[in-house]
Amino acid sequence: MIVVKIGGGVGTGFDNLLRDMAGRKDVILVHGGSDFLNKLSDDMGVPPRFVTSPSGHTSRVTDEATLDLIRMAYAGSVNKGLVERLRKEGVNALGLSGIDGGLLRGKRKGSIRIVENGRVRILHGDHTGTVEEVNTSLLDLLLKGGYVPVITIPIEATDGGGLNADADRVAAAIASAVKADDLLLLTNKPGLLKDVKDDNSLIRSVAEHDIDQAMDIAEGRMKKKVLAAREALEGGVKRVVISNANAQRPIESALNGEGTVIC
Amino acid sequence: MIVVKIGGGVGTGFDNLLRDMAGRKDVILVHGGSDFLNKLSDDMGVPPRFVTSPSGHTSRVTDEATLDLIRMAYAGSVNKGLVERLRKEGVNALGLSGIDGGLLRGKRKGSIRIVENGRVRILHGDHTGTVEEVNTSLLDLLLKGGYVPVITIPIEATDGGGLNADADRVAAAIASAVKADDLLLLTNKPGLLKDVKDDNSLIRSVAEHDIDQAMDIAEGRMKKKVLAAREALEGGVKRVVISNANAQRPIESALNGEGTVIC
Repeated sequence: MIVVKIGGGVGTGFDNLLRDMAGRKDVILVHGGSDFLNKLSDDMGVPPRFVTSPSGHTSRVTDEATLDLIRMAYAGSVNKGLVERLRKEGVNALGLSGIDGGLLRGKRKGSIRIVENGRVRILHGDHTGTVEEVNTSLLDLLLKGGYVPVITIPIEATDGGGLNADADRVAAAIASAVKADDLLLLTNKPGLLKDVKDDNSLIRSVAEHDIDQAMDIAEGRMKKKVLAAREALEGGVKRVVISNANAQRPIESALNGEGTVIC
Repeated sequence: MIVVKIGGGVGTGFDNLLRDMAGRKDVILVHGGSDFLNKLSDDMGVPPRFVTSPSGHTSRVTDEATLDLIRMAYAGSVNKGLVERLRKEGVNALGLSGIDGGLLRGKRKGSIRIVENGRVRILHGDHTGTVEEVNTSLLDLLLKGGYVPVITIPIEATDGGGLNADADRVAAAIASAVKADDLLLLTNKPGLLKDVKDDNSLIRSVAEHDIDQAMDIAEGRMKKKVLAAREALEGGVKRVVISNANAQRPIESALNGEGTVIC
């Protein structure tokens, strides 16, 4: 079993990737959608607001209006658009959010610590969380039925309702729960770069015990990927590969170790 | 087995209905979302466009942009919002669009005949269709797994991609395919009214052979409900009830024959 995480790139992106899904069994696809969400937020006149945690992670403030935009962007447009395109490639795709059938559940953070103007303060009422339980019996049911699950946020709060969650870490939680051999984090970079501006500075391999160092090197969204990789390895996943979604055959390449292999 | 169709009413509507779902087994829920879609279209600066067929049915023009708004409104916001709320009531709800797992498939109409300024003309490139195949094995799999399917559009075109379809007729197709005893079409009216402005003019019963007459009486959206009722009865459903979604216990009431019973 492999878990493949892709971004939520709109339009005609991912043609290679979707084609590379054709004929594969035992794949669970997890996708993001932040670019689409940002565009939708702007179109709707609700510009996204980002905050930084004391440990340097950037995350989106998720009030009730933003949560509804997440339902629309991730579970609506991107999920169903991907499922449509996968099905055209002959993949028996079936889209689910973490809400559906209680697939992905986690505690509501409630309040988060953010850094604003150099000072730490508490932000309340944020609809975010991290996955603590995966309904693996639902995944088994679907996989045995011949369906390829295509999974996205929101996840379900243990006290009810939807929550925003980081899609890379969602993929790590799923990969851990289903005891996947490989978690492939496909992105628009060749992998973890020593210098984010230089695609030739690819770090080909990171040992599990060097992951803290990799965390220091990673910038922006890549930080979440390295964090997700650590969580997946801690969860029992054998290998995580951060790799290029735009390769000719992105899944094949990642499985062959193209990109940054973390194990 | 019963199939319950509800509108896509936003916000806190349907509290009674969702509470009445609690504890029920063997229910498939189908929902609309046109009010939310209209609002979203306006917010996005893409006002909806409606056309009238020569037989007097009103329908939405569905270009590619509108189809994406349908993914967002129906499969995103309304579907996931309903699933969240049902799960809070203890219902093990799982949301699906007709795309997912090829649940609902139908031929793309391609072109439709419309009446404009009193003249009939052909409109091309419309992403609409009607359900011709229901993946009942997927519904069986989920029902046997203990999940309550919450179903909406888009449906899948037999030549690939998503299509808009009328949700009442979608519900009729599902009810026929699963050989439901009852199809309950819940709405904001007490049922089919002789005079649409007089809630006391309820028609309590329509025999199958009098359905043409009922079609003549029905106005606006109610026309689609009567058409859906006819299709369901032709498909082998025993009884269709058009009933009030705002009753204290809407499902119970409809099953007790409150509203317009068609059989």
